[in-house]
Amino acid sequence: MTYCVGLLLDAGVVLLSDTRTNAGLDNIATYRKMFLFEQPGDRAIGIMTAGSLSITQTVIARLTEANEDADSPRSILRAPGMLQVAEIVGATLSDVTSEVSGKMERMNQSATASMIVAGQRKGGPMRMFLVYPEGNFIEATPDTPFLQIGEHKYGKPILDRVIAAETTLADAEKAVLLSMDSTLRSNLSVGMPLDFAVIERDALAVTRRRRIEPTDEAFQKMSHDWSEALRNAFAEIDPI
Amino acid sequence: MTYCVGLLLDAGVVLLSDTRTNAGLDNIATYRKMFLFEQPGDRAIGIMTAGSLSITQTVIARLTEANEDADSPRSILRAPGMLQVAEIVGATLSDVTSEVSGKMERMNQSATASMIVAGQRKGGPMRMFLVYPEGNFIEATPDTPFLQIGEHKYGKPILDRVIAAETTLADAEKAVLLSMDSTLRSNLSVGMPLDFAVIERDALAVTRRRRIEPTDEAFQKMSHDWSEALRNAFAEIDPI
Repeated sequence: MTYCVGLLLDAGVVLLSDTRTNAGLDNIATYRKMFLFEQPGDRAIGIMTAGSLSITQTVIARLTEANEDADSPRSILRAPGMLQVAEIVGATLSDVTSEVSGKMERMNQSATASMIVAGQRKGGPMRMFLVYPEGNFIEATPDTPFLQIGEHKYGKPILDRVIAAETTLADAEKAVLLSMDSTLRSNLSVGMPLDFAVIERDALAVTRRRRIEPTDEAFQKMSHDWSEALRNAFAEIDPI
Repeated sequence: MTYCVGLLLDAGVVLLSDTRTNAGLDNIATYRKMFLFEQPGDRAIGIMTAGSLSITQTVIARLTEANEDADSPRSILRAPGMLQVAEIVGATLSDVTSEVSGKMERMNQSATASMIVAGQRKGGPMRMFLVYPEGNFIEATPDTPFLQIGEHKYGKPILDRVIAAETTLADAEKAVLLSMDSTLRSNLSVGMPLDFAVIERDALAVTRRRRIEPTDEAFQKMSHDWSEALRNAFAEIDPI
């Protein structure tokens, strides 16, 4: 499995993904699930992926190829806006899913993937989409300023409680890391290292990007402090 | 869906269940999912159910009938110990599942259910089992002193952090209610009122039972205090 979370805030887009992939429980590997595309001054786009690696890798490879091919109508670096970027990602995902599924049907198996696509193009608003395996998508709004893919349940309560459109980037970083921390703790199929990125509003560039390794002392401290804080909070609650 | 959680602690068994059942999103009803069987001084047994109501109601009805039929070998009130109680519940669940599934196969549908069975018989240890739809089961141990059925993910992080075999009953009550609170908040298919019960070690009776209505002020206060405490804990964490 996977856990990826994206926030669409007044201050910008915040993205966090894990890197664990597994085929069964005994075949675990580390693969990047966050892909950043930028043309500084014109646009910055982040894509996060969940699901079958054979599908997500092919989709990202085709998107990358389309960017390099000046004639391709499917370049997300040349698309006129974020809606068209989501449509290109959706169409590519839908194509690859149908090709792979055709092959897998013979074995009575199937494979799917979903993606979070977020960013901003010059002159347009910041937008964030969740693209389904079929290629259709939904969009984050101020009422629901976060989207998740993969193993999303463990880390949802903290987001439900603290994330709103006006949340600061510093609080947003804490919130997604704590949401990931709960998921890592409760589900083996989500694993370190993590990829973290921020695209600030109107920066038209990836403002921060960071890989957080299992040995990262700041993350370890945050995780430890949060456990402590939760236990203290728990101790303070009056019994019924 | 459903959320039921059971704790097997040194001090006793703690059980909590919601009461929401739904067929689709537009057909919601309230049904008890916790069933208590006791013969004070001899045994106390709690059963919680998740899954298809047509299966769980029939299982509970058959178990109740077997208790009233002096010749039935499937009486959980006459079984020599908790292991045999789990076996009887498993066998009954397996029978009913297979009968119902036989009928549903014609419509290309299926139905399943799972159960948590916990309690103590005089002279034996307290035990808690999770019975799968097939009738087989696993047992809680001091290493893993809680079992969950239904919508278990949202409420697991708090249990992972605070529950150990030596947790007091007062803390356990708080923990299961907060675990339920996170689930209620994040998932529409889990709903109030709640059923709560405690079987203290060697009491051989249900020591506490309580229905918590949506208007329950103590639960509302706990829920509100926990939100506040979480937000304060969040505010205290240093950003990375």
